[in-house]
Amino acid sequence: MGQIISIVGKSGAGKTRLLERLIGELKQRGYKIAAVKHMRHDFEIDHQGKDSWRLMQAGADSVVLSSPVRLASVTSVDSEPTLEELRRFIGADFDLVIIEGFKKSPAPKIEVYRKELGADLVCTPEQLLAIVSDEILDIPLPRFTPDDIKGLADFIEQRFPVGREENIALFVNDKFVPLGSSVKETLISDLTGLVSDLSGIGEIKKLDIWLRRPEG
Amino acid sequence: MGQIISIVGKSGAGKTRLLERLIGELKQRGYKIAAVKHMRHDFEIDHQGKDSWRLMQAGADSVVLSSPVRLASVTSVDSEPTLEELRRFIGADFDLVIIEGFKKSPAPKIEVYRKELGADLVCTPEQLLAIVSDEILDIPLPRFTPDDIKGLADFIEQRFPVGREENIALFVNDKFVPLGSSVKETLISDLTGLVSDLSGIGEIKKLDIWLRRPEG
Repeated sequence: MGQIISIVGKSGAGKTRLLERLIGELKQRGYKIAAVKHMRHDFEIDHQGKDSWRLMQAGADSVVLSSPVRLASVTSVDSEPTLEELRRFIGADFDLVIIEGFKKSPAPKIEVYRKELGADLVCTPEQLLAIVSDEILDIPLPRFTPDDIKGLADFIEQRFPVGREENIALFVNDKFVPLGSSVKETLISDLTGLVSDLSGIGEIKKLDIWLRRPEG
Repeated sequence: MGQIISIVGKSGAGKTRLLERLIGELKQRGYKIAAVKHMRHDFEIDHQGKDSWRLMQAGADSVVLSSPVRLASVTSVDSEPTLEELRRFIGADFDLVIIEGFKKSPAPKIEVYRKELGADLVCTPEQLLAIVSDEILDIPLPRFTPDDIKGLADFIEQRFPVGREENIALFVNDKFVPLGSSVKETLISDLTGLVSDLSGIGEIKKLDIWLRRPEG
């Protein structure tokens, strides 16, 4: 049920490099991490003539490739997925989801800043959690140098302690439904009760439910 | 909540070609289709030096690429995903899931057969729904010629009418839990009742719930 954190900054500021190093550090600390890269244009992931490409060309809405070491998927979308749609796509099985880009989303953001690229920030200080820069900026936000990856990872760990407690996420008609903690608690208890009543269900550690009620 | 159908056959029998043509036909009939290709070895989907590759190398357990037209993901796995794991990965938003390979899975299977590749079938007749072959075989199963894509699509439509009725899928601790129709009905009614009680929830057409109760 991963906390989403977005790394923003101008093109050339070093977002991907920071993402790489931060992922390495957080991974060493034992977190399960999903990384999301936002591409303004289409990208090449399958290639003309390859099977995945052929199946997509044939009209598949999604093509999945499965091997003993990797699972990959390519899915057509009608428009840029929102943060909510991405959250659903990524699923519940990561501790942290680190996103590059999506500067307009409501996700907590860290901006990578380099003076050479212009004096202004991509986001307003109010939208940011922290800044990564070699420059000392007159902005009341925690600042980390690009090399202080451990410091930034400590900051993220403190700010978003990875939930080892029980949690629930609810999507109704594709929309994420924010729930208060007491509502969550009640819902978790009611749901586990409901499912435990089915025969052959042992202790419930993970529960995933899909319900579809088509028109007509 | 897509029905899974597997296309099996020896290497060179024409599985991918059949998959392509069948997907094209079913797509024209209005179905939303996911295609799964089983690779015995690892495959190349991202490339050395590319961002997705860099983030995976950095230690991300999953890398997602998002553009206005495509959403792609690459996830590390420890072993060959089972049919159940694939089902979870693919999600509930396809009418049909057509798989190439996975001949040992319990999914309903159609075998593509060519006499030149040997007299025997990959699966036993008991494991098969139908055979696609130019040869007349002494096997009491429906047979379609490789060019009779419409006939095969008709057969699939009749055999697995795509559910326009309400449906629910339940996974407990990553395992799919098969439910009888009366249990399904009760669970759907109880669940929608539970969620409808939350404030601000309108009519429920789709419901996705993730619950996690970590150790300790």
